[in-house]
Amino acid sequence: MKTLRPIGVIRSDLKKPGDAPKQGFEGAPDAWIDVYAWAAKAMKGLAVGDEIIVITWFHRAKREILQVHPRDDRRNPLTGVFATRSQDRPNPLGLHPVVIRAIKGNRLRVGPIEAIDGTPVVDIKPVLHSPPSP
Amino acid sequence: MKTLRPIGVIRSDLKKPGDAPKQGFEGAPDAWIDVYAWAAKAMKGLAVGDEIIVITWFHRAKREILQVHPRDDRRNPLTGVFATRSQDRPNPLGLHPVVIRAIKGNRLRVGPIEAIDGTPVVDIKPVLHSPPSP
Repeated sequence: MKTLRPIGVIRSDLKKPGDAPKQGFEGAPDAWIDVYAWAAKAMKGLAVGDEIIVITWFHRAKREILQVHPRDDRRNPLTGVFATRSQDRPNPLGLHPVVIRAIKGNRLRVGPIEAIDGTPVVDIKPVLHSPPSP
Repeated sequence: MKTLRPIGVIRSDLKKPGDAPKQGFEGAPDAWIDVYAWAAKAMKGLAVGDEIIVITWFHRAKREILQVHPRDDRRNPLTGVFATRSQDRPNPLGLHPVVIRAIKGNRLRVGPIEAIDGTPVVDIKPVLHSPPSP
């Protein structure tokens, strides 16, 4: 069964989709991730300063959308959602590269992150840097 | 409903988990993604040479695992799965940064990628490069 179980939730000052920039690096704030108690053991080893990728579920997305005008600008030609970061897509997963700013119990302060308050978090992964090519 | 619907499947010469390196950059081969016909419209705009992130579902993962010895080496201390790339995790999503080598109809040749044959693909996203810091 490919059913996602949220491991936590975003707590942000961004309350509405219209408040959020499209990408974290476009002026997004820091936010808290409240990791649920059952999953807190999986945080062991995370440290302040770590680069991580937060995977969210865009719970307001339209899953039937396959093509969009990028950045909601009709002057941009219709493009397949796999070539864009549109939230509307068959499986509305969000990837957010962030830095851990603080850890308090089972809460992680991370940023910058454009996800709005209440967005479910489904995974957290460390950023891996591949070795330089020989 | 947070239920994933695969948008395609990996077709690789890697047939068993034991055949696969742990990361794409550790000598993994190229592979095909067969995008299902219903999702093929979402490929519009993808081009050979593009850097993309393929998101897979590790269908053989153990979802109840919260801590592991990294790289299956007992000499490494037990670490939370959110601080590792373990396939065993509550939501076993895989992130694979790859380059598009070829496009034939609704098939994408990508690599290097360590996912084994038959792995479900749930999303494809372009790599975004943030602008340099001012």
